[in-house]
Amino acid sequence: MPRQVTAFSNATVKRLRSLRDKKARRAEGLFLAEGLRIIAEARDSGRLPEIIAFSPDGARHPLAAETIAATEAAGGEAIETSADILAKMSGKDNPQLLLAAYRQPQATLKQIDRSRSPLWIVAQALRDPGNIGTILRTGDAVGAGGLILLDDSADPFSVEAVRASMGALFTQALAIARWPDFLGWLRSGKGQLVGTSLEATHDYLETEYTQPCFLLIGNEQQGLPEAYEAECDLLVKIPMAGRADSLNAAVAAAVMAFHIRASWR
Amino acid sequence: MPRQVTAFSNATVKRLRSLRDKKARRAEGLFLAEGLRIIAEARDSGRLPEIIAFSPDGARHPLAAETIAATEAAGGEAIETSADILAKMSGKDNPQLLLAAYRQPQATLKQIDRSRSPLWIVAQALRDPGNIGTILRTGDAVGAGGLILLDDSADPFSVEAVRASMGALFTQALAIARWPDFLGWLRSGKGQLVGTSLEATHDYLETEYTQPCFLLIGNEQQGLPEAYEAECDLLVKIPMAGRADSLNAAVAAAVMAFHIRASWR
Repeated sequence: MPRQVTAFSNATVKRLRSLRDKKARRAEGLFLAEGLRIIAEARDSGRLPEIIAFSPDGARHPLAAETIAATEAAGGEAIETSADILAKMSGKDNPQLLLAAYRQPQATLKQIDRSRSPLWIVAQALRDPGNIGTILRTGDAVGAGGLILLDDSADPFSVEAVRASMGALFTQALAIARWPDFLGWLRSGKGQLVGTSLEATHDYLETEYTQPCFLLIGNEQQGLPEAYEAECDLLVKIPMAGRADSLNAAVAAAVMAFHIRASWR
Repeated sequence: MPRQVTAFSNATVKRLRSLRDKKARRAEGLFLAEGLRIIAEARDSGRLPEIIAFSPDGARHPLAAETIAATEAAGGEAIETSADILAKMSGKDNPQLLLAAYRQPQATLKQIDRSRSPLWIVAQALRDPGNIGTILRTGDAVGAGGLILLDDSADPFSVEAVRASMGALFTQALAIARWPDFLGWLRSGKGQLVGTSLEATHDYLETEYTQPCFLLIGNEQQGLPEAYEAECDLLVKIPMAGRADSLNAAVAAAVMAFHIRASWR
């Protein structure tokens, strides 16, 4: 049976709340996900939380009730608490009725089986966790196998990234790697590395993409370092019609990924 | 000559800072933009701020110095201040070296001259100001004429929207309208209204788009209301390959807008 928790000072409440902080996430190896939708997505992908917290309203949905029971049956912890305490844990004024802590998956290149998908997204030093989550969501929608985060990137397990991923964190493979390690791994098998660049001469619409294709997206401010561009098998540009010289990183990833998929039809 | 301001309690500092709040933006008819890039974009588009604040470092760039002088020559106010005070005004730990307040443009359907562009983006009840800014940025890049915001949407003049727009707020036309007014206006001239829907039977890749095309994007949570879908000349779907049943709103706008442009080449 789930425990009833009414105190902000409760140890589990404090522990869940601490997961909004990167250091605590790392130390615990856990991350927070909020809301029925993402928790149901996790369940569909065979993942149960280690801790689940919910308001009485949150437990009413059959999927929620089932996940709470399954979490306890698997030795996890379930607490029933108030909307106020859920708000405190999620840092939102209008919190979800459910909140759960999941074990972080290993995020190494070993997780990436390139034969599983014709398309993979690779992103370099992304700063905005919302972009990481949005790219994961896009990857799921477009049928990519997963996301490889290069160099110093924002934390894909941050609350903002998890929110933006809308559950895709549970369906997309994820790896975090340094550039030389990624490059060594990439060249140990088949794969076309495609970068986008303002200086490229190939129009992204007039290019042939081969499978497995690794789509490389640069940092929000600087784009791709020159040395990285030099390693690409193909550099393409998305022609800009207006004043701006670039797209939002998650938008660029989506425009390219959807076009690459369309080119294969 | 710009005044030196060293006090947080200075009236101009307080006024600029207040523009982070929607009520104050409305009452003043102003909005905040931060950083050399967007201020230069505004200048290129023939727009000067009414107030500009900068640190000594911020005034060093020739474009900044020129904008500061032009602002004063046009009767605007320029203040030189500290990085600390700029941080207070922008609400960021790492503030830009320049910050400026611009008059909000009128945002009515009268601003939209549909003959100016083959493509317009229309978004319904967007909640996330970052999505609004990102869609403006995408619109600029793809050669859209502007953005029409339907119903109760987040404020396109919020700091977050302005940031995400990366200057496109100054290059894209903008209108805010209720659905019946928009529909009356739309049907008073030429225009294909294209909505995206999960239930649509037309694949977005196998459809003919006619100019001027009005691309209609739904709210982040609910998508388009049924009554709005019923008014569309064309409903298309973006096939989803994975678990998720939708894309981020700004991503959906970009995938559609770039595909529509590509289909016209």
